[in-house]
Amino acid sequence: MEKKTRWLTYCDRVPVLSWLDWVLRGFSQVMFQNNPLTGLLFFAAIVVSAWQANAPQVAWGCLLATLVATLSARLLLKDRTALTRGMLGYNGCLVGAALPAFLAPSAWLWLCIIFSALMSVIVTVGVNRLLKQWQIAALTAPFVFTTWTVLLASHSFLRLAPLPQPVLVSVTPPDMLPQLSHIIPATLDGVSQVFLCNSPAGGILMLLGLAVSSRLAMMMALAGSLIAVLIAMLAGAGSQPIESGMYAFSPVLTAIALGAVFNRLGIKTLCYTLTGVVFTVLMQGAFNTLLKPLDIPTLTMPFVIVSWLFLLANQNENSPLSSAP
Amino acid sequence: MEKKTRWLTYCDRVPVLSWLDWVLRGFSQVMFQNNPLTGLLFFAAIVVSAWQANAPQVAWGCLLATLVATLSARLLLKDRTALTRGMLGYNGCLVGAALPAFLAPSAWLWLCIIFSALMSVIVTVGVNRLLKQWQIAALTAPFVFTTWTVLLASHSFLRLAPLPQPVLVSVTPPDMLPQLSHIIPATLDGVSQVFLCNSPAGGILMLLGLAVSSRLAMMMALAGSLIAVLIAMLAGAGSQPIESGMYAFSPVLTAIALGAVFNRLGIKTLCYTLTGVVFTVLMQGAFNTLLKPLDIPTLTMPFVIVSWLFLLANQNENSPLSSAP
Amino acid sequence: MEKKTRWLTYCDRVPVLSWLDWVLRGFSQVMFQNNPLTGLLFFAAIVVSAWQANAPQVAWGCLLATLVATLSARLLLKDRTALTRGMLGYNGCLVGAALPAFLAPSAWLWLCIIFSALMSVIVTVGVNRLLKQWQIAALTAPFVFTTWTVLLASHSFLRLAPLPQPVLVSVTPPDMLPQLSHIIPATLDGVSQVFLCNSPAGGILMLLGLAVSSRLAMMMALAGSLIAVLIAMLAGAGSQPIESGMYAFSPVLTAIALGAVFNRLGIKTLCYTLTGVVFTVLMQGAFNTLLKPLDIPTLTMPFVIVSWLFLLANQNENSPLSSAP
Repeated sequence: MEKKTRWLTYCDRVPVLSWLDWVLRGFSQVMFQNNPLTGLLFFAAIVVSAWQANAPQVAWGCLLATLVATLSARLLLKDRTALTRGMLGYNGCLVGAALPAFLAPSAWLWLCIIFSALMSVIVTVGVNRLLKQWQIAALTAPFVFTTWTVLLASHSFLRLAPLPQPVLVSVTPPDMLPQLSHIIPATLDGVSQVFLCNSPAGGILMLLGLAVSSRLAMMMALAGSLIAVLIAMLAGAGSQPIESGMYAFSPVLTAIALGAVFNRLGIKTLCYTLTGVVFTVLMQGAFNTLLKPLDIPTLTMPFVIVSWLFLLANQNENSPLSSAP
Repeated sequence: MEKKTRWLTYCDRVPVLSWLDWVLRGFSQVMFQNNPLTGLLFFAAIVVSAWQANAPQVAWGCLLATLVATLSARLLLKDRTALTRGMLGYNGCLVGAALPAFLAPSAWLWLCIIFSALMSVIVTVGVNRLLKQWQIAALTAPFVFTTWTVLLASHSFLRLAPLPQPVLVSVTPPDMLPQLSHIIPATLDGVSQVFLCNSPAGGILMLLGLAVSSRLAMMMALAGSLIAVLIAMLAGAGSQPIESGMYAFSPVLTAIALGAVFNRLGIKTLCYTLTGVVFTVLMQGAFNTLLKPLDIPTLTMPFVIVSWLFLLANQNENSPLSSAP
Repeated sequence: MEKKTRWLTYCDRVPVLSWLDWVLRGFSQVMFQNNPLTGLLFFAAIVVSAWQANAPQVAWGCLLATLVATLSARLLLKDRTALTRGMLGYNGCLVGAALPAFLAPSAWLWLCIIFSALMSVIVTVGVNRLLKQWQIAALTAPFVFTTWTVLLASHSFLRLAPLPQPVLVSVTPPDMLPQLSHIIPATLDGVSQVFLCNSPAGGILMLLGLAVSSRLAMMMALAGSLIAVLIAMLAGAGSQPIESGMYAFSPVLTAIALGAVFNRLGIKTLCYTLTGVVFTVLMQGAFNTLLKPLDIPTLTMPFVIVSWLFLLANQNENSPLSSAP
């Protein structure tokens, strides 16, 4: 608390530090944290993963888009409360990671990232207004909406060319059955896939970032990813998507949201969160089939749908967790 | 009333009877009734249809899922009013009929039915909360949502294998033109398809079940099915889907909902219901095309969409049926 | 004002004139105007375009459907305020233009137009009720919903045959790159495509119609179309869709809605509208890809989605245009 106050005092004095603070909190809000140090560790994880995959544009896109989103929010909105908590930056951050991961690099790509980051702010404000009366958060829906729009549009405009394969997907040889020894790397990959990365080292850095802000959130993320990997293996999902963490990143977010952010800890909450994680794995399988004809990635939509439902179902006195509001 | 009271008195004394009562009311709520005898006749209809089609797993799935949904609701929710009316069982009942009708039997299927029945309760509570401010019911949307998720996911997980053909679809030889003599069986099939069955005998038992609770609902169901079959024939739909009742089951539910449950009877209501039935047939044709690339069934979504619209349009003083609230 | 009053006095005396007035205002509301003269010029534009394309059924369909929608609203609803402003006719008008443009002419087509016009009224009342609490308008969503339903259903019913090619699409030879000299015709085509026409002369008549009611709306429509054509050219969309105005008609409506109807004019509003127009072009590209597997047209859905978002985002004191409510 003391330390935080000192940092905020510096920020108040040096405007550039304020901006840095807002951008870092934007990174950290991707996993529901409001902590610049967490944001710094998340960004370090992205940098490490991007360089490992020889795709530094993902890290730059992430940084640029979070900056543009923060700047847009600063210009467009009077009330800065949400801005200073990073609530208007995290969707931009994800858009900035996703577009260079799926589109070929070009000047138009960067123009598109800047415009999409601005869009992500308007969409976030719009979706928040839409959901206000149910008192549920926009989660990463604005990111998914904006990115899907651009990726679908890229098939209509020659200047935006979709890549034959996302830059950050590992090209491990496909096995028929996933190896037991791959459970741990797949779990860590699952955490890193929240930022569209595919790197166990990145996953560890992100868990570290979470631990700095909330140990509970870190444990939920780790447990969510592990459980998702195990269920996907047992249910017979393909080994390639399991091992690159594709079945785990949405459950990671569901676990943090239901288990560490929006409900009070307890046995009931743990059961509710576990149910939500299992349903998110099922929903991930459903979205894989649903989007195959369109050839666009599911992004975090399985998490958004399941979490909205579970948050909606838990809102009044007659709800599953009513005794633990 | 007297008889009902005696039954409820027995239920109060013997806990097992209470559970039976809730499960039977869950069956009956599929067609908007709150009557254990109706539920019993509905279940008899399912049993007859399932054995006729040599697919008893549909009847068992139905029973198991309604039980699990009722149990989940009992554990999760404090307020038992909805539970005792069967309002938390009917979506589970339909999920339990649909999954064994479209997926190959296996231990994983039964595990999946149990989990989906639990899900149907959480989704029902969530959707009810979502729709609360418009004062419209969830209808069978939670069933459709949960079943679509599992069926789409079955393409991603080896343990859940979609059947090459739904077990309850009759394999009548396809004619180019539907026969006039098939109108009556098609109408009865349409009623039974509400529970994913395909049996005139089942349809008759279901109409009997409705008559026990509400003669108006029974007449609406029969008329809705007949009108839908006639329109589909006139408009030139394929004879195979018409004769197995595929164009009639959503209109059956639209007719009961608009004509016998949510509006007061009268000439205006009859016209409004007829319009809704015709629009549901059109919507069924639209959903057939919409879902063809995904290879999943429409289930009762055409009914849900049309009824939501017609109920929304009829809510304030300046509405089509305003004089008959 | 004086002239308008005299016209309304005539209307009060002669019932047939009242009906004419309501129908013409229905036409004019397609572009957010409440002016019978504008409606007359719009209808003249449709007639000119339809005869140029040798497809008079589009003009007749438009007239018939607006009449039926107005009549249905008169019979169904007590409150006539919306009716007398044309608010219940414009969706019918568009349905009546779209169905003969995409379906083969037949007695069933005309039956279908009449039923769809009736449906458009119920859907409009329903959607208005749905959106009431966010205080945003239904826009052309009821038209898109009704038309998509019929077009999708036309693949299921033999009596409704989809045309191999929409009647009003010009068959200019496809170039790889759009010609600079085509910018002006493409811009005018874009305006006329709001009514599913494809005629520079029609576009000019529509701009005239707008000018009669609001010069600002006319300038927004023209600028919106021009900017959309330029962006689509720069971004490398196909020359054929650009030149037939396919990238411009949704931005025309976005520009009028955001720039001339729902926000007060000013620098901020101009920037906001420009952003909305660019996003609508992107959304048009996205919907082209999204609907390709279903083989149905995007209609004005890109406009509806973007405008809803931009109107939602601009609703409270902490919104982009808060200083200009």
